[in-house]
Amino acid sequence: MPIVFSFSNDNFIANKVASNLNFKRGNATIRHFPDSESYVKLNSEVKNEDVILINSLDHPDRKAMALLFFADVAKEYGAKSIGLICPYLGYMRQDKRFHDGEAISSDIFAKFLSQHLDWLITVDPHLHRYKALEEIYSIPTRVVHATLPIAQWIIDNVHNPYLIGPDEESTQWISEVAKLTHAPFVILEKIRRGDRDVTVSVHDMEQYREHTPVILDDIISTAQTMIETAHQLNAIGLKPPICIGVHPIFAANSYQTLINAPIAKVVSSNTIPHASNAIDVSPLITEALKAYLND
Amino acid sequence: MPIVFSFSNDNFIANKVASNLNFKRGNATIRHFPDSESYVKLNSEVKNEDVILINSLDHPDRKAMALLFFADVAKEYGAKSIGLICPYLGYMRQDKRFHDGEAISSDIFAKFLSQHLDWLITVDPHLHRYKALEEIYSIPTRVVHATLPIAQWIIDNVHNPYLIGPDEESTQWISEVAKLTHAPFVILEKIRRGDRDVTVSVHDMEQYREHTPVILDDIISTAQTMIETAHQLNAIGLKPPICIGVHPIFAANSYQTLINAPIAKVVSSNTIPHASNAIDVSPLITEALKAYLND
Repeated sequence: MPIVFSFSNDNFIANKVASNLNFKRGNATIRHFPDSESYVKLNSEVKNEDVILINSLDHPDRKAMALLFFADVAKEYGAKSIGLICPYLGYMRQDKRFHDGEAISSDIFAKFLSQHLDWLITVDPHLHRYKALEEIYSIPTRVVHATLPIAQWIIDNVHNPYLIGPDEESTQWISEVAKLTHAPFVILEKIRRGDRDVTVSVHDMEQYREHTPVILDDIISTAQTMIETAHQLNAIGLKPPICIGVHPIFAANSYQTLINAPIAKVVSSNTIPHASNAIDVSPLITEALKAYLND
Repeated sequence: MPIVFSFSNDNFIANKVASNLNFKRGNATIRHFPDSESYVKLNSEVKNEDVILINSLDHPDRKAMALLFFADVAKEYGAKSIGLICPYLGYMRQDKRFHDGEAISSDIFAKFLSQHLDWLITVDPHLHRYKALEEIYSIPTRVVHATLPIAQWIIDNVHNPYLIGPDEESTQWISEVAKLTHAPFVILEKIRRGDRDVTVSVHDMEQYREHTPVILDDIISTAQTMIETAHQLNAIGLKPPICIGVHPIFAANSYQTLINAPIAKVVSSNTIPHASNAIDVSPLITEALKAYLND
């Protein structure tokens, strides 16, 4: 019977997945020494077991060595396989060489994970120039889409929604949520000049003055895209928008900045634990894991 | 001709080594995105070059992915070899399984570095249960000892020194500095109960009341060993000691705590850039590198 471990931040999903599937719940100590080095200790037997680790890979540098230590020691103690469920998969944004000399970190990180793990399941990875994880991961991967629970949350909570995708990358994904919610939608154009410098062009949206705008994005990091979009909606007289992100990274003080912007609410899925979490992805992850293990 | 790169913290040693040996100085951008992910870009040609990277591995989690990206992109651009000079080598302290289930991080980290690099030079690695880096590193390694410049600093700056090694691990090393300085020395016994809980036993030291105590340790992390030792020397009426560490990690606010203890001065080598640096290891590193490349 598989045994489910997690890094402490990911206990909620790990507990749900293990109890949904009646799997054993493993225990490991994962902490830092005062000098910041990582410490990993397995407290449960893994001999001949299929080990499943739940570890969201936001702030991947902080977690990569501990993940490596975990995979190595689990193999040393005789684990039959080690699979990773990372509700958020980091290092997907540098998906090409924008300038000569750049390391394509998505590709190198994929090689690193592929070397130490047997399979990977994630939620809505940032697939932009890559069409599928198979292009960079050499281990089996499965992708879970949060569109269904997000659409359900909108149906349950938003009156007369008008969906707004902040850039072209969100097209397919916004159109899917629009189909499920029967809501109108628009995709904006984003011009990125640097990490924090984003402008968004807004056309022809005045007809939606009576709607509740819902801005949807996969990753909220600096929140600049959301904030800029909210100000533009405000300028043309739309209602304060609801901001939904699948992956609430919220770098530095960006969450505080976002909730001080002219918006109604911030909502996220629990791929990364955060105060804004309102959409639970653990049922989807459970299904995907069950399907993968049955294959 | 070899080309020397460095992470920004290590520019001083990189500049010294490159100019001492008349090697090219390479330039790379190594920074973090707002979401904390690492970004690496080579700004100098490396095709058919022997690449040397200076990167001290204190806070190794923060640097390991960038190091991986650097090594990978340098190979992709045709580097002939990639060597690492890490003045401080992290992950050497978990050198055995103290409790069942623990990952032996020294060994796993050594495998990780050995896989991505061609050779490694470091200064006084924390060799306790391992006798040599070869036990865990599969690439050629060279170890530089800071004993000579430390002894020289003591000769130049300390009147009538009395050397104090805080634990058995320091025996060989303290005795070497004692030989070079012709100073008396003592090795204390350390009992470690947890990361920050250290007591030290002090015997028969009253005869050194007119000496200047010099406490020597390889790593200063929480500084608890130094602080506890200083208080005990104080209690038996010795002068305030000079505290010398090869590797000034200084976790959290430990440097402030140490300089507020009954001590005269804190001095360190520049294996990790820090306000206490007074002993330059770059001549030693230069020599070791020259000898290695000539072999």
